[in-house]
Amino acid sequence: MPFSFRLIATDGAARNGEMATPHGVVRTPAFMPVGTQAAIKGVHHDDVRASGADIILGNTYHLMLRPGAERVAALGGLHAFMRWPYPILTDSGGFQVMSLSALRKVDEAGVTFRSHIDGAMVELSPERAIEVQNLLGSDIAMQLDECVSLPAAPEEIERAMELSLRWSERCKRAFESASPGRALFGIVQGGDDAALRQRSARALTDIGFDGYAIGGLAVGEAPEVMRKVVVETAPALPADQPRYLMGVGTPADLLAAIAGGIDMFDCVLPTRNGRHGLAFTRFGPINIKNAHHAEDQRPLDAESRCPAARDFSRAYLHHLFKAGEALGGTLLSVINLYYYQDLMAGARAAIAERRFADYVAQTTERWSAKPDIRADE
Amino acid sequence: MPFSFRLIATDGAARNGEMATPHGVVRTPAFMPVGTQAAIKGVHHDDVRASGADIILGNTYHLMLRPGAERVAALGGLHAFMRWPYPILTDSGGFQVMSLSALRKVDEAGVTFRSHIDGAMVELSPERAIEVQNLLGSDIAMQLDECVSLPAAPEEIERAMELSLRWSERCKRAFESASPGRALFGIVQGGDDAALRQRSARALTDIGFDGYAIGGLAVGEAPEVMRKVVVETAPALPADQPRYLMGVGTPADLLAAIAGGIDMFDCVLPTRNGRHGLAFTRFGPINIKNAHHAEDQRPLDAESRCPAARDFSRAYLHHLFKAGEALGGTLLSVINLYYYQDLMAGARAAIAERRFADYVAQTTERWSAKPDIRADE
Repeated sequence: MPFSFRLIATDGAARNGEMATPHGVVRTPAFMPVGTQAAIKGVHHDDVRASGADIILGNTYHLMLRPGAERVAALGGLHAFMRWPYPILTDSGGFQVMSLSALRKVDEAGVTFRSHIDGAMVELSPERAIEVQNLLGSDIAMQLDECVSLPAAPEEIERAMELSLRWSERCKRAFESASPGRALFGIVQGGDDAALRQRSARALTDIGFDGYAIGGLAVGEAPEVMRKVVVETAPALPADQPRYLMGVGTPADLLAAIAGGIDMFDCVLPTRNGRHGLAFTRFGPINIKNAHHAEDQRPLDAESRCPAARDFSRAYLHHLFKAGEALGGTLLSVINLYYYQDLMAGARAAIAERRFADYVAQTTERWSAKPDIRADE
Repeated sequence: MPFSFRLIATDGAARNGEMATPHGVVRTPAFMPVGTQAAIKGVHHDDVRASGADIILGNTYHLMLRPGAERVAALGGLHAFMRWPYPILTDSGGFQVMSLSALRKVDEAGVTFRSHIDGAMVELSPERAIEVQNLLGSDIAMQLDECVSLPAAPEEIERAMELSLRWSERCKRAFESASPGRALFGIVQGGDDAALRQRSARALTDIGFDGYAIGGLAVGEAPEVMRKVVVETAPALPADQPRYLMGVGTPADLLAAIAGGIDMFDCVLPTRNGRHGLAFTRFGPINIKNAHHAEDQRPLDAESRCPAARDFSRAYLHHLFKAGEALGGTLLSVINLYYYQDLMAGARAAIAERRFADYVAQTTERWSAKPDIRADE
């Protein structure tokens, strides 16, 4: 199936759609679990799929350094290598270069950085970012962009936005040789400046991509700033193409962004928080390490679709964390992935039935309804 | 079902049997994965069960310290707490006291030790060891014994053996109040001294237990010594009751012990080695971290019953270890648990068909047949 997107329903600015890709259909709004190094941390692919994930994200930065894009290609591409035969989106590597590498140098040509693994100097140009993603064979590739931490000086935000625009054109040109049917997304930059975001969105739309991401958020700004940028930027993007908010976020962030017209998300929160003992549930977040769970025989959610949330007692999950058993982190990661997917499934159904505002209100109310659980937040 | 044991077939000294317990049937020879802290390290219970495990082992020492035997009892016992509704054997705690605790003191009354978790002084008498196992509710409980590291002075081995015998009587008396149907095993001690082992076996048989273990092995002695003790000791135990070799061992150790008349095993090797990158396969052990696996698209064993051994390439498993992804250790642990269970299933079938010597020869030959894999050993 070549890449395509169709809207099924809208409710206010919220959208329910369907994205076709060479490796299958993605229902939107969609949450993409993060498979940084060709694995979702601590979780078996079978559980990722069973949670309801249509698509996962792979990190170009990590994969190009280890095991290497050429090696992955020789082994049949990322789908075959990791044995995930469903859709995969790869980022461009730019964000991790900024956050993980020492000694990076950004100029017009691209970014040069020192590998955090073996200290080698590595060049990542827009053309190389596309080449790497072609070698990985992802269904959706992202342009290389420069992402600045917030707060930042207005000139710095503008400079990075303009550079990202020029890089987007070079990425588009490089992507022309990609195997047919795959998609390339542009990335809106502009920090917390509404005018810059509008300019970036218009310019990217003029260049023309298969979809558009909002980048440069969840980089230190307040949640209100992030939500404001989303609400201001999304309407500037083509209505008939998918919109992806990169690296966001909490369940509340996701609902707010969907209300603003976002279709796709990725975030490490469900697995990272899971490994650290925080469970996302219909009743709000629960810190399973808190002592008051030690003798609580209730499961996290007796009505969850997730076996681990139904079957194991809070006391047992608490014990696993106290005892340092890795199974605890795995079970909570799985529980959180199910929760995120169920949140998306609920949003899709609510939008289709034009009751999304009610869905948000009910979901949010339930998060704060239980006094014994509020104590955990 | 109350505890019982019946022999189905014998082939030389090797035995195929069936053990009934309150939580189900155990086919012997049986391998028990080790669930130290109410979890098999890194592996979901569903995978442990799917591997073919009829029974797991729980460590009394760990569970009495955390979450505590009284707490496990309040939460419905170990089966309900960890949600493993199948047979469980618990050890007595004695072995871990010797190997993990500083400041231990052994006298006639029992052993006093400092908890490695919170530094508290804890007393473990034969009566308390049984009380703890009753609280946990295991299907098979073990007597408290004193285990000495080898090599040791003959007087020291004899003293510990005699003390263990006196403790076995106290354990038996304490176990009279246990819920009906559960079993108590005595433990033969005597180090590498055949005469002491015979005395211990006879004395325990006179006292009378539901089954008999050979303890005090895999504590530093050479494999030949271990096998010699097994072959000399097993025939001194009642033919119509199960025989359990504690803490052993490699696949080769297991086959040798089965040939000597052993019915039950436990060992951390499949999971510990799995976490460290060593896979047990039909073709012998494979160290997946070795560089020559980096581009090997073959699975570990295309004909394995284990999905992870069939589905993932050696290159991918290698990558997971190189990248430090915990999923690698989990997958190899699962692969190893399947291998151990399949080794036992093969042994049971071979004994039933009176071709156990051939099974051992063929299995052993296959381990060393592949030159590309010999390099890994």
